[in-house]
Amino acid sequence: MTEFAAVILAAGKGTRMKSDLHKVLHPIAGRSMLHHLMASVDELGPSKTVVIVGHGRDQIEAAVAGRAATALQEPQLGTGHAVQQAQAALSGFSGDVIVLYGDVPFVRPATMRTMLERLHAEDAPASVVLAFRAANPGAYGRVIADEGGTVAKMVEFKDASEEERACNLCNSGMMAVRAADLWALLSRIGNDNAAGEYYLPDIVMTAAADGRKSAYVETDEAEVRGINSRAELAAAEAQWQDFKRTEAMDNGASLRAPETVFFSWDTELGRDVTVEQNVVFAPGVSVADGARIRAFSHLQGATVGEGCEVGPYARLRPGAVMEKRAKVGNFVEMKKAVLGEGAKANHLTYLGDAEVGAGANIGAGTITCNYDGYFKHKTVIGARAFIGSNSALVAPVRIGADAIVAAGSTVTRDVGDGELRLVRAEQLVKPGWADRFHDAMKKKKAAEREKGG
Amino acid sequence: MTEFAAVILAAGKGTRMKSDLHKVLHPIAGRSMLHHLMASVDELGPSKTVVIVGHGRDQIEAAVAGRAATALQEPQLGTGHAVQQAQAALSGFSGDVIVLYGDVPFVRPATMRTMLERLHAEDAPASVVLAFRAANPGAYGRVIADEGGTVAKMVEFKDASEEERACNLCNSGMMAVRAADLWALLSRIGNDNAAGEYYLPDIVMTAAADGRKSAYVETDEAEVRGINSRAELAAAEAQWQDFKRTEAMDNGASLRAPETVFFSWDTELGRDVTVEQNVVFAPGVSVADGARIRAFSHLQGATVGEGCEVGPYARLRPGAVMEKRAKVGNFVEMKKAVLGEGAKANHLTYLGDAEVGAGANIGAGTITCNYDGYFKHKTVIGARAFIGSNSALVAPVRIGADAIVAAGSTVTRDVGDGELRLVRAEQLVKPGWADRFHDAMKKKKAAEREKGG
Amino acid sequence: MTEFAAVILAAGKGTRMKSDLHKVLHPIAGRSMLHHLMASVDELGPSKTVVIVGHGRDQIEAAVAGRAATALQEPQLGTGHAVQQAQAALSGFSGDVIVLYGDVPFVRPATMRTMLERLHAEDAPASVVLAFRAANPGAYGRVIADEGGTVAKMVEFKDASEEERACNLCNSGMMAVRAADLWALLSRIGNDNAAGEYYLPDIVMTAAADGRKSAYVETDEAEVRGINSRAELAAAEAQWQDFKRTEAMDNGASLRAPETVFFSWDTELGRDVTVEQNVVFAPGVSVADGARIRAFSHLQGATVGEGCEVGPYARLRPGAVMEKRAKVGNFVEMKKAVLGEGAKANHLTYLGDAEVGAGANIGAGTITCNYDGYFKHKTVIGARAFIGSNSALVAPVRIGADAIVAAGSTVTRDVGDGELRLVRAEQLVKPGWADRFHDAMKKKKAAEREKGG
Repeated sequence: MTEFAAVILAAGKGTRMKSDLHKVLHPIAGRSMLHHLMASVDELGPSKTVVIVGHGRDQIEAAVAGRAATALQEPQLGTGHAVQQAQAALSGFSGDVIVLYGDVPFVRPATMRTMLERLHAEDAPASVVLAFRAANPGAYGRVIADEGGTVAKMVEFKDASEEERACNLCNSGMMAVRAADLWALLSRIGNDNAAGEYYLPDIVMTAAADGRKSAYVETDEAEVRGINSRAELAAAEAQWQDFKRTEAMDNGASLRAPETVFFSWDTELGRDVTVEQNVVFAPGVSVADGARIRAFSHLQGATVGEGCEVGPYARLRPGAVMEKRAKVGNFVEMKKAVLGEGAKANHLTYLGDAEVGAGANIGAGTITCNYDGYFKHKTVIGARAFIGSNSALVAPVRIGADAIVAAGSTVTRDVGDGELRLVRAEQLVKPGWADRFHDAMKKKKAAEREKGG
Repeated sequence: MTEFAAVILAAGKGTRMKSDLHKVLHPIAGRSMLHHLMASVDELGPSKTVVIVGHGRDQIEAAVAGRAATALQEPQLGTGHAVQQAQAALSGFSGDVIVLYGDVPFVRPATMRTMLERLHAEDAPASVVLAFRAANPGAYGRVIADEGGTVAKMVEFKDASEEERACNLCNSGMMAVRAADLWALLSRIGNDNAAGEYYLPDIVMTAAADGRKSAYVETDEAEVRGINSRAELAAAEAQWQDFKRTEAMDNGASLRAPETVFFSWDTELGRDVTVEQNVVFAPGVSVADGARIRAFSHLQGATVGEGCEVGPYARLRPGAVMEKRAKVGNFVEMKKAVLGEGAKANHLTYLGDAEVGAGANIGAGTITCNYDGYFKHKTVIGARAFIGSNSALVAPVRIGADAIVAAGSTVTRDVGDGELRLVRAEQLVKPGWADRFHDAMKKKKAAEREKGG
Repeated sequence: MTEFAAVILAAGKGTRMKSDLHKVLHPIAGRSMLHHLMASVDELGPSKTVVIVGHGRDQIEAAVAGRAATALQEPQLGTGHAVQQAQAALSGFSGDVIVLYGDVPFVRPATMRTMLERLHAEDAPASVVLAFRAANPGAYGRVIADEGGTVAKMVEFKDASEEERACNLCNSGMMAVRAADLWALLSRIGNDNAAGEYYLPDIVMTAAADGRKSAYVETDEAEVRGINSRAELAAAEAQWQDFKRTEAMDNGASLRAPETVFFSWDTELGRDVTVEQNVVFAPGVSVADGARIRAFSHLQGATVGEGCEVGPYARLRPGAVMEKRAKVGNFVEMKKAVLGEGAKANHLTYLGDAEVGAGANIGAGTITCNYDGYFKHKTVIGARAFIGSNSALVAPVRIGADAIVAAGSTVTRDVGDGELRLVRAEQLVKPGWADRFHDAMKKKKAAEREKGG
């Protein structure tokens, strides 16, 4: 493949999203549309990526900083005009240019590669158009192909003849063109149309006027579907999830109810992993072989080791690391915390900024008090330690190996290896008190009821 | 529109529901079928609504008390007979009457209006029938229209000729008739049929015998679908939810997985609200712009302010109010509680009958002890207060602004502004105790195992 | 019905599952495929069941121990050879044999019965083949029937003529044969085919060579669908769940969103039970009339009494028993615990190895400390007792009837009837301390920020 640069159009307003967030920054599977597309481009190793910005440019500039250049299109005079804004950023670049759209996020690298390779086929077309067969071509622009399989004509729907409209080969808008050709052709297209805009596809006919043919590459309609509303966003998400669920099952994971499992773009599942119903994988999760993710669990930025059991109702937040055969049970939250091999935190627990040694047992209702309102502090729990239920461990604090913290303790000082820490206030007994209290309250309740009545 | 009254039939037994609850009181989207229908009627401002009751009349009477009159049908001799029972309740009323069915809850106000207006069109029909085109007309009664678009004949399926059966315009049973006509016509219909019942549609042919034509209004089959079983109830719920999800997205909310979000009839979502997977909105919830409802959350009777973050696994119960940018995290329950601007309750907490000031931080495992077994008491927490983890606040109690409650404290007396409340028992250390305990227990365990073997 | 034995083939490797667990042991609705099938066989009262094992034999032998015999097939030379391995285990048995497949779990008892009865019809066929009409017969072996409705020919797809391929009556592989016939016929079939295997269906043609006809029984394609991959496993689960959901609704349960409710093979629901969204029933659950299972609940091995309320976010584990009108609320876990009539545990609680008396109230954040790291101990709470919030009950411990435990108490000794147990440490007040702390921390924070910048 020749050197290439990508120009991604993302200047539009995205009115139908009704959002303060720029359309192309809306996420699918935990990653913005724009970053899905850029990741696909990056697989092919572009010389440069230029994102054309306009509306909401600050958001886009922040989102692509360090990964792509941006070029401002203002005012916005059509797709041809948009691409033209990349010329300065690509000055001196003499390879190929592929034009993509930020709101068409799922064009595959293989398709981009095919477009770029087609540009250098023997017939050396002036440009390569990405086309698709539409089930309902409606108002799409049509790609009229001649017998030799090259583009005879690009025609907007409203300008198309009956015969042309009957053709279902449609223009996706995406193109590949040599840089030199691109700038030269763009400088020659006009805006003599109803909208007064400069249209990128017009370079095909401009090249044709020079006797240069253009080629097309055909792909699936699903791949080039644009996302313009929240409903379309949700539909794209659903399609992505279905694909990923099937892939996970094909790779040897059991999903009890695949339609209730939600993955992120980077979720990694090992072999013989079981995922029960209603599990959400936010970004940054890897699950090793044989682990079981039980119902109603939510994982993000977490590493789950071999043979671990997670949930039901477990929340693993960023920095949660479970080593082999560790268990996290119901209503337990982990954040920046390591749970050692075979260690257990089975119920109603918060482990934040903590290290728990192998084989330790964290009782129900244990809270690591990691925050003082200003700073976070660390709790370190030794191997095989036993933390009694309903304990509060006030960090920074260190519990030794094999140590025991008695139930209901608030621990503010370190506990040594093999020590018992027992925090116990006096247990006062007031015989008969409860009976007297019940009597008094029942009377009060009755009195209130009478007043109420 | 002329003055009108609504007569809603709800006397039937609903055997197929297999329920002690009256069929029309089964809920869809958190509101009974009957109340969905009455709300639609109310949009048009009826003079009176009369609900015809029979089986389970106590339940219905209680459910509509203050909103509609009821009239008893006993015994139950058909739809015509049912409507006739409303005559006394409507005595003196001389407007139009629209007849509806409690188990056909989703007839739109616009459709009712069209029926009532049609009644007063130039041709002044004797009655207006609500008809629909059935995909599979099966055993529905047919509406045979003449060329002029009025009703030539109403015919029960079993009495219909082959030609009549081929017609797919069906009778929904709903009608609009002038009150005077209605009572007069009903008094003349007979019960000379297999079931020995008085059928409402017979008034059409009775009027025709006087030379008076009836008209029909045609609507969608989905709108007039009756609900007779739990499966049909679930299907109606699903249809309603899909409609509401699409509406929410069109209005600028992002639903990550729309099929997992469940709304109630009165849920209000602002713009740029994000709703993650598996969220249930029970009745009475409003969510302001930019708020984020995370996965596995359940909200009921709750007000969520701008930019708030809720969940995952948050339960907001009636009276929960979150002011701007407040946060409620995992395994947290709020009930009759206000969380001030920017205040946070991030983990494993119960806030009941409480007021929390702006910027306060409620530590993990905090419980407001609001109930003494007889009465509920209130907890008031000042602005910027810091409640240490695993604390119990025994209401009635007041924590001052900027006050700090140390972790693990049980607070039974008020804490002043800027005070530290520290409840700490002695921490007893028993070096070596845990090691000795482990040894003893391991021996006991081994002994038991031997015995077992 | 004559005496019969079942031979279940389960020796294959199941490569497409990509699992260390044997294919037929993968669960659907909480029970392995093999056990689904064996349960259906057991409904007909077999004389003996023999499971043919090979790959992963240890797993299967352990799974069927005490319920079925096993016979080893090694090496694996085809289905005919597999069935032959059962001969020794069935030595002396002279009834009928039905051949089934461990990965075709949902053949109905009625179908098996029909096959066995057909074997003894007047025409006394040599064997009975279970056939099905395939929507897309593809590469299935075909059953060519003659005019009299008996099998004229069994033909593998690759050996079939065009005309034979056009027939959509396909061979499921399942057969019924008299034991004596089976062993005799199997000893005569050859392996002269591309795979060099002995095929069970070849006995049909072998019998035909003796002038003995075979019959077929036709059933639905869905019933004989084999499961070979995790995706097929998930599809079978989905189909089973849909069936069960419909059945539950037909029997008088309301499922708000049936597609989000997951049952197990043995779940029992009473009449007028309401199940909200996102509920998982693991095996061993029965729910009595009028109970309400709220959203996000997970039940396993639990008994829910009449009129109980469970959830939202309740987890009932094995041995959880809720008596009439008991309530378990959000973020509450029960395990081996009885909650008496009308008793309540509404929030953030762990009840393990406990007995709670009628009418008792378990406050938010209560933990039964049932485990000392080695042994489990029991907590007994009397009728109408009131356990204050955030209490830890250190088992073994007994709380009397009408007793009160004050909020925040750690109870290690028994509390008598009508007693108040109050565990309270001194509440230290440090006026102004919090203000000074805030000042100091703000300075430290600012200093860090400066350093950072």
